[in-house]
Amino acid sequence: MTAFTPPLDDIRFVLRHIAGFETLSGLPGLEHATPDLADVVLEEAGRLAANVLAPLNQTGDRVGSVLENGVVRTPPGFKEAYATFAEGGWMGAVFPEDLGGQDLPWTLNTALADIWNAANMTFQLCPLLTQGAVEALLHHGTPEQKETYARSMIEGRWTGAMCLTEPQAGSDVGALRTRAERDGEHYRIFGQKIFITFGEHDLAENIVHMVLARLPGAPEGTRGISLFIVPKFLPGENGAPGRRNDLRCLKLEEKLGIHASPTCVMSYGDEEGAVGYLLGAENEGMRCMFTMMNNARLAVGHEGLGLAERAYQQALAYARERVQGRRDGRPATIAEFPDVRRTLLRMRAQIAAMRALAYWTGSFVDRAARSADATERASAEGRVALLTPLVKAWCTDLAQEIASAALQVHGGMGFIEETGAAQHLRDARILPIYEGTNGIQALDLAGRKLDMAEGRLPWDLFEELQGELAQAGPGLEEALRAALGALEGATRHLQEAGPEARAAAATPYLRLFASTLGGFLLARGARAAGETQGAAVWPGLARFYIRQILPEAIGLLPAITADPGELDAGLLVA
Amino acid sequence: MTAFTPPLDDIRFVLRHIAGFETLSGLPGLEHATPDLADVVLEEAGRLAANVLAPLNQTGDRVGSVLENGVVRTPPGFKEAYATFAEGGWMGAVFPEDLGGQDLPWTLNTALADIWNAANMTFQLCPLLTQGAVEALLHHGTPEQKETYARSMIEGRWTGAMCLTEPQAGSDVGALRTRAERDGEHYRIFGQKIFITFGEHDLAENIVHMVLARLPGAPEGTRGISLFIVPKFLPGENGAPGRRNDLRCLKLEEKLGIHASPTCVMSYGDEEGAVGYLLGAENEGMRCMFTMMNNARLAVGHEGLGLAERAYQQALAYARERVQGRRDGRPATIAEFPDVRRTLLRMRAQIAAMRALAYWTGSFVDRAARSADATERASAEGRVALLTPLVKAWCTDLAQEIASAALQVHGGMGFIEETGAAQHLRDARILPIYEGTNGIQALDLAGRKLDMAEGRLPWDLFEELQGELAQAGPGLEEALRAALGALEGATRHLQEAGPEARAAAATPYLRLFASTLGGFLLARGARAAGETQGAAVWPGLARFYIRQILPEAIGLLPAITADPGELDAGLLVA
Repeated sequence: MTAFTPPLDDIRFVLRHIAGFETLSGLPGLEHATPDLADVVLEEAGRLAANVLAPLNQTGDRVGSVLENGVVRTPPGFKEAYATFAEGGWMGAVFPEDLGGQDLPWTLNTALADIWNAANMTFQLCPLLTQGAVEALLHHGTPEQKETYARSMIEGRWTGAMCLTEPQAGSDVGALRTRAERDGEHYRIFGQKIFITFGEHDLAENIVHMVLARLPGAPEGTRGISLFIVPKFLPGENGAPGRRNDLRCLKLEEKLGIHASPTCVMSYGDEEGAVGYLLGAENEGMRCMFTMMNNARLAVGHEGLGLAERAYQQALAYARERVQGRRDGRPATIAEFPDVRRTLLRMRAQIAAMRALAYWTGSFVDRAARSADATERASAEGRVALLTPLVKAWCTDLAQEIASAALQVHGGMGFIEETGAAQHLRDARILPIYEGTNGIQALDLAGRKLDMAEGRLPWDLFEELQGELAQAGPGLEEALRAALGALEGATRHLQEAGPEARAAAATPYLRLFASTLGGFLLARGARAAGETQGAAVWPGLARFYIRQILPEAIGLLPAITADPGELDAGLLVA
Repeated sequence: MTAFTPPLDDIRFVLRHIAGFETLSGLPGLEHATPDLADVVLEEAGRLAANVLAPLNQTGDRVGSVLENGVVRTPPGFKEAYATFAEGGWMGAVFPEDLGGQDLPWTLNTALADIWNAANMTFQLCPLLTQGAVEALLHHGTPEQKETYARSMIEGRWTGAMCLTEPQAGSDVGALRTRAERDGEHYRIFGQKIFITFGEHDLAENIVHMVLARLPGAPEGTRGISLFIVPKFLPGENGAPGRRNDLRCLKLEEKLGIHASPTCVMSYGDEEGAVGYLLGAENEGMRCMFTMMNNARLAVGHEGLGLAERAYQQALAYARERVQGRRDGRPATIAEFPDVRRTLLRMRAQIAAMRALAYWTGSFVDRAARSADATERASAEGRVALLTPLVKAWCTDLAQEIASAALQVHGGMGFIEETGAAQHLRDARILPIYEGTNGIQALDLAGRKLDMAEGRLPWDLFEELQGELAQAGPGLEEALRAALGALEGATRHLQEAGPEARAAAATPYLRLFASTLGGFLLARGARAAGETQGAAVWPGLARFYIRQILPEAIGLLPAITADPGELDAGLLVA
């Protein structure tokens, strides 16, 4: 595996010109978040990522986390790296200062996630889930819960785990059977959860499990679910971990990838029942869960972005060093051959578009949370709702494609594990699955999100994009107009269609949507590049993407508008 | 991993209606190859595949082949399975009766490969490479070489290995350094080869290495390469293996997939030099190699086809059994949800198109080899030349996509190794790489193949396809016409373009070509389905593919006709 160089030029460029970072410090509470501060933060993060996290990525894969006598041992170096990460205050980057955090913008946190994930995606999973748990606590917790649990996680002393899935309850969370019983001031939890990422580990002194469970007599399905705080150790004196709670890790899954991340089968209440504390109100667990989930969905999109960057860097380095055949009469590296250049450039341009989409979405998270103006807050919230499934599904689908292309660039060496290219492909393969499969994301977009705000969310966006067409410049305007036209047609069609047609069209619709938006964001970058040092590549990237990649997305339109009856189950015979 | 059911209905349908199997028995030497015989052969192969080979597929992955003290031990059951396979005469299915084979058509052999690969692709790699070695011997060997080596492999007593690659000589075979020195009647070989599939194993009593090497004073590059027969044991009395030759396996690669297949680093001539026998003439090794390679390229395409079928069957079985959520007020399997149906149907339709392309190509191999009419032979040869890169690259690219989609259908369970879906993805990943990367295939198509026969090869085909448009039927004709129009435009553009533009366009051009051809072959199937029992799915598959998948390919046209200067290496900065 090759070294990782944080792509700070691109990151700064996208922060400034796509996410409008300079304007964020105009938001209440973000006055300190200046571009200068961001530069310092990014440089520091880049050093930690390149020097501490990145070198552990391959070890993490080869050794993996191991369960022995109920204790999970993370791979060599992970514990020390986590300590450095926590001591640096990185866990609390985005959280309130009065709970130990640094109150940085989500937009900047997106850039940090980009860096952490590129360096070591599996390591970053632990902060990712912790972040989700903190979010849920900040939104729905009591002041005491925030002080006890959120603070401990923000300070990096404890970590969080999201405990939703059961064997029969995956995408259908409402089918869960874990039960909770009231026991005085708290509850007792009984049941098993699967696929619990970092549910048990040796990185921190305590683990806060956020467990979905059902109370006796609760309504069926998702309306009868409550969310409980179930710490591994009950809070003791002075915030230190106290008595061991009744929960344990039964097993680690043997997975295709992300070997450093312990994927736990967790059992709660084998003895007297695990002590749990209700978060929010009884039977309102789904709402609390979605607070965690929306955050986590964006964060998984960022995993796709970071992983794609890492895979690309490795493929580029190999292609520039591997000599095969000749060009112009002299030995040539494979990076010189047009077909390999096409592969690499496709990766490069898509990553730029993914980064633009992710950071831009981050800026709306900040505006939704902080804007002084209620209308702007609501509008930004709508934008986040619309873009979240795009960030999650598109960035992770492309991460697959990019990791696979990066392996291909290596030829036969790519298939050898030692090279490290295969790890990226294996690690990437979980991304379209967890935190809501990409199919679920597409259904969310084509279903709920198209109906929110009387159906205005996409049209507000399209109006913005229409306004940019004329500035796109020769050769780009036409291609962008064609894609936007297809997207508008698809949107109109689906908004008038029934749920079956929307479900049938969801996946190609999401791809058309995100691909088109990616093109417009690259075009923005191309326009801004003239003003910025080190940004000379943006016009070329935009041009390549818009003229050579974006047209593929238009080819999805027939599938989107097709009669859903063409998806005939009767054809599915072997 | 679920059971495997050979898709005999589809196989028979494609043999009859796409490959025109009935007409093959009109070719000299294939009089016995009637549809009735084919039925018996396929039933028998299906039983062996389902009962013996398929159950070993997951064990093969989990245990893998192991090197100990210079000896490679294949996974449990493989040795017995190979003995059964060899005793059944399957190794010689397609080879001359007077050398111990069965003289079956290549078309039928394609169907057999489809079955073997679906059952256990990694097992099938050993016969695949043996087949390539036999082909080279039949075309370029002396009568004695055929009797000694080809017969032993045809009878399944010995196996073959293709020994081309060296660390510095991958896609650029001409850079190889292994050297050969004349030593009386034979030669002595000195050098190392890497990526030698089944270069060492315990399945058979001898292994025939076909080794590319360079003679002293030979011209540089590919014009100075010779091919040598280097048996593990020199032929002894009565055809039994005699003295051990000076070659050995130094190492097995630790790979992403195909664990049952030993990928060997081979050393020749560590002591006195490995004894080698020249095949064909000195310095004509490339020609002999291409005889092996063309066969092997088609065979790798068949691996993609079979693997895709297996992955699809597993995903379909899971989707039909996994209950999540509800439809129409009752619990539903995920196969009932439109988005999952789209995923499965896409796989199903693409596999049908891949099978059609592979078998159809097989029929031209038979006509090229057997037709009494020289013009028909030449025309069929041209067709094979044109279609070989399509079969190799398209079927293996789609195998990736299908294996990945099959994993996705499993949700979180797909990421757990025990489920078996991940193995298909890992195994599939080698297919676009070996026997000429898919980039090399695309360059072969857009370069050499477009120029053969004064550029007529594609146009002869397009003329045929044009003639079918009017019969395609409502809703299909227009979509097929659009795709063919794009393909013709792309072809015209590339035939007039220089090598740089062709190289830049090669990969999207190959995809457009194969996707379009796949659509036409499905339309043929749809037209034929009316007459055939058990073929009711074909019109629906054709309709779905042509209306919902094929339009994506048209979106590749702008990339094909773009200025190659847009692939600007200056954009490839991190």
